[in-house]
Amino acid sequence: MRVAELSRQTGVPVPTIKYYLREGLLPAGELTSPNQASYDDRHVRRLRLVRALLEVGRLPIATIREVLRDVDGHADWNMHERLGRTLYPLAGVHDTPPGPELAAAIADMDAAIARWGWQVEPDSPGRRKLAEVALTFRELGVEYLLDEIDRYAAAAEMIAESDLRGIATKRAPDDVVTSAVIGTVVGDALQAALRRLAHEHTSVRMFGRPG
Amino acid sequence: MRVAELSRQTGVPVPTIKYYLREGLLPAGELTSPNQASYDDRHVRRLRLVRALLEVGRLPIATIREVLRDVDGHADWNMHERLGRTLYPLAGVHDTPPGPELAAAIADMDAAIARWGWQVEPDSPGRRKLAEVALTFRELGVEYLLDEIDRYAAAAEMIAESDLRGIATKRAPDDVVTSAVIGTVVGDALQAALRRLAHEHTSVRMFGRPG
Repeated sequence: MRVAELSRQTGVPVPTIKYYLREGLLPAGELTSPNQASYDDRHVRRLRLVRALLEVGRLPIATIREVLRDVDGHADWNMHERLGRTLYPLAGVHDTPPGPELAAAIADMDAAIARWGWQVEPDSPGRRKLAEVALTFRELGVEYLLDEIDRYAAAAEMIAESDLRGIATKRAPDDVVTSAVIGTVVGDALQAALRRLAHEHTSVRMFGRPG
Repeated sequence: MRVAELSRQTGVPVPTIKYYLREGLLPAGELTSPNQASYDDRHVRRLRLVRALLEVGRLPIATIREVLRDVDGHADWNMHERLGRTLYPLAGVHDTPPGPELAAAIADMDAAIARWGWQVEPDSPGRRKLAEVALTFRELGVEYLLDEIDRYAAAAEMIAESDLRGIATKRAPDDVVTSAVIGTVVGDALQAALRRLAHEHTSVRMFGRPG
């Protein structure tokens, strides 16, 4: 199909598609003449993925490029290694400058991770992200919001098992990585929406309705 | 304290503080002379809250203003109603245009919410957000990522109970609303970090290590 049809099928304007092509978020189409390229269903799927990462995940262009490069590569690697390589950049930026406070928070969280028996690499970006959140809670005077972190970890494990069961059993290995990216990024929005609804339900039970 | 000291204590530059004052994110200080205002610990705490909502939650200024107005008001309301009023704007923007596909997704998710026995208002923004995520999964061809949604809901309920137990029992009622805002926004980052670490741990168990 031509770029106009690709635009029609995905709802993404032609100038935006050209921008993604220049930025390397979308592979080039097959040249059918010096000025015309032809696109196929893989472009439709990739374009929808890019939109979801931008609109739902609000990821920076550079992160999306990095993730997509890893989605496409390393087919001969062990699946655990491929997933780690692709998903590590999705842990989010590190906002907190290094220092003794962050180091102490990292040590606290490492102790919690060891208590849960979780096997995670020393350089796993989730470790630092977790420590940054702990530090933010402390700065805001709400450290007690971490009092039930062991229960949060148990819930996260339950969610992760369902997540991986879904992507591991229902798709060809190559799609596992793409599904994992979608499940991680769009899955954050899913978990956040469920948590808000569960807050409302639990609040009714705890505080009652007005009047 | 003067604005320079407020800046020193929070690490927020003076021009940024003045911008927040103009935008109504920070209440005015007490005027000590026509050109000088005095700030106190409440300003320090509020400034740290604004920074967390901006940097961790990446919320738009207008949303933060709306949330903070509700944090400060309605002290005579029932707590469930106050929390709902304050937290509803935090559900996130609605990206998906209305239409038959969104309506069908909302109907599906409403059926799931009824199945879980959750008491949530018809206009609860989490309903629509959930439907938008379901629609995104469908468009990306990964509907099966919702196969275990009942388990996700059970995990969300577990998390929400811990969340509300924390904020309800450990603080004065006025701080409950502030803590709930922090717990919702910064808590999303906490849950996302835990979920990524749990993915890594589960992936090792499921796929083994390389080599």
